[in-house]
Amino acid sequence: MGALTAIKEKSVSVLTEARLIEDVVAAMSDACPPAPEGPGSDCAHLPECGGRAFRVCTVDGVTLGRHFDLACTGRRAGAKLVNRNLSDLAAAGARPSDALLALTLGPDVDAEWLRDFAFGAGRAAVRARLRIVGGDFSRGPAGVFVATLSAQGYAHRVLARGGAREGDVLFVTGALGGTAYGRHLDFAPRLAEGEWLCGRAEVTACTDVSDGLVKDLPGMLGTRLDAKVDLARIPVSEAAGLLSRGDGKPALEHALQDGEDHELAFAVSPSAAGALAADFRKAFPATPLSRLGSAVRGEGRLLDAEGRPVAGRGFDHFA
Amino acid sequence: MGALTAIKEKSVSVLTEARLIEDVVAAMSDACPPAPEGPGSDCAHLPECGGRAFRVCTVDGVTLGRHFDLACTGRRAGAKLVNRNLSDLAAAGARPSDALLALTLGPDVDAEWLRDFAFGAGRAAVRARLRIVGGDFSRGPAGVFVATLSAQGYAHRVLARGGAREGDVLFVTGALGGTAYGRHLDFAPRLAEGEWLCGRAEVTACTDVSDGLVKDLPGMLGTRLDAKVDLARIPVSEAAGLLSRGDGKPALEHALQDGEDHELAFAVSPSAAGALAADFRKAFPATPLSRLGSAVRGEGRLLDAEGRPVAGRGFDHFA
Repeated sequence: MGALTAIKEKSVSVLTEARLIEDVVAAMSDACPPAPEGPGSDCAHLPECGGRAFRVCTVDGVTLGRHFDLACTGRRAGAKLVNRNLSDLAAAGARPSDALLALTLGPDVDAEWLRDFAFGAGRAAVRARLRIVGGDFSRGPAGVFVATLSAQGYAHRVLARGGAREGDVLFVTGALGGTAYGRHLDFAPRLAEGEWLCGRAEVTACTDVSDGLVKDLPGMLGTRLDAKVDLARIPVSEAAGLLSRGDGKPALEHALQDGEDHELAFAVSPSAAGALAADFRKAFPATPLSRLGSAVRGEGRLLDAEGRPVAGRGFDHFA
Repeated sequence: MGALTAIKEKSVSVLTEARLIEDVVAAMSDACPPAPEGPGSDCAHLPECGGRAFRVCTVDGVTLGRHFDLACTGRRAGAKLVNRNLSDLAAAGARPSDALLALTLGPDVDAEWLRDFAFGAGRAAVRARLRIVGGDFSRGPAGVFVATLSAQGYAHRVLARGGAREGDVLFVTGALGGTAYGRHLDFAPRLAEGEWLCGRAEVTACTDVSDGLVKDLPGMLGTRLDAKVDLARIPVSEAAGLLSRGDGKPALEHALQDGEDHELAFAVSPSAAGALAADFRKAFPATPLSRLGSAVRGEGRLLDAEGRPVAGRGFDHFA
């Protein structure tokens, strides 16, 4: 009956994150509205002021031992917490507004490290004009540090996963993979790019690449489309190449699977894709943009240019 | 440098919750706006739609071993999570709107218990018309279950801590103490009462009693006022009486110190107090209302009717 079980088959460790979400949303039933107001994308979109704008909400956390380790400075962990949330707002094209910070602290959390964490979080927030308007402290078991931020912003329309149509062209910003080299703690969320994309009606769907392109790109398209991409066009980061030399795994696999890239993947109506890419490159000359392929009728897979399913999967939080 | 320390004096365990909040807010500096938009009350108040309304935000969590134990059903723990947040919204007189749920789960969390938790949370949310619009899962160490809810509502004015003036009359709803008898898992947040109080301009301040009246009543008044109360008027719950028989501690002390009552304490302009109390009793005949005393010039203490400081303190999350 209690919250914990000694029987592995009964524990959450045998469930995927997708299954856990499905179970919890089903159990909450009427409390969860359908997307875009409810669960199902990087953010929820709530109409405000008589529908003239949308309040865009997201929540994300960092846990010691999971998202950072004992070697990590507080400053970097705090910045990571804020930037993870800002990346979700970026994928919705939302301008950051306000956030709430909840901390669960074991009695052995270092007080100075915690101040440094708050400093890093505050600095990342100020940079993006996100205001931290409140929070909560509670005590956890020894060895535990869990920080959760719920962040909100505003957008003029709903830009989310799930809006892509057959034939839409698929893009991704930046370079992917190798985040274990520290980039997962140091990235700058693509807020300006996201807001720009939100202002272009021909952008039909957008997501941030947090669990690996192999998972997030099909995740953006849903269960009735496949992402058919030219693997040679996947932007592989230098760090992925370095990692590959160390572990012998192809750099492309790192680029597809590593997770925590926090780049933006998006879909564009085919007739507008060329012009949009040209305008994007003019607006953001320092942000790489790769045209990967297109959405084809399917069942939620990543396919190569010949239509063969790409093996491997992204980062799953529970499997 | 890491998040944990083996030296007790350097750990958060030697700090009070108030000191922790102060430290973290100071470290975040410019990221935190001043109250009522920022930290300092049960909720933050953000102007919406050109100032015609306020979006009211709060965040609160439940942790296994801290807010509930292994004997607790998922349903009750889930309801508690939602109701803790709703009680903060009630203190601001806000009508609940939407919430985000973040879960940090050890690999040994029981999947069926988790579904029951979600069911309980969902039911409490539906009852209050609070919609759960999104969330996040992440994995924690074995034995860990942390659930954080950030909830929002709307109010037409700022009703918060800190607005009381010298001479204001102090009230509390319900009966206090003895929450260890299970009420801390089963309370109904005073949402209707809070919204009603928010509609009365003569109510100058309000808070929910979550850490014990001895802490929360002075907390509402700030550092320049004392709460001078007639101890004979403190509403002592039956459960406090039962506990007292068991542990020999006076029932009044339970009523003052136990915490997790989730009743509303509020201040009213002296000339309007009598009429307001009469109207309140007409509007909510089933909700006990006690007139405790008044705010006097001071320094943030609870005083008895003779002006002597009342010993004891409420529940502190870290000391």
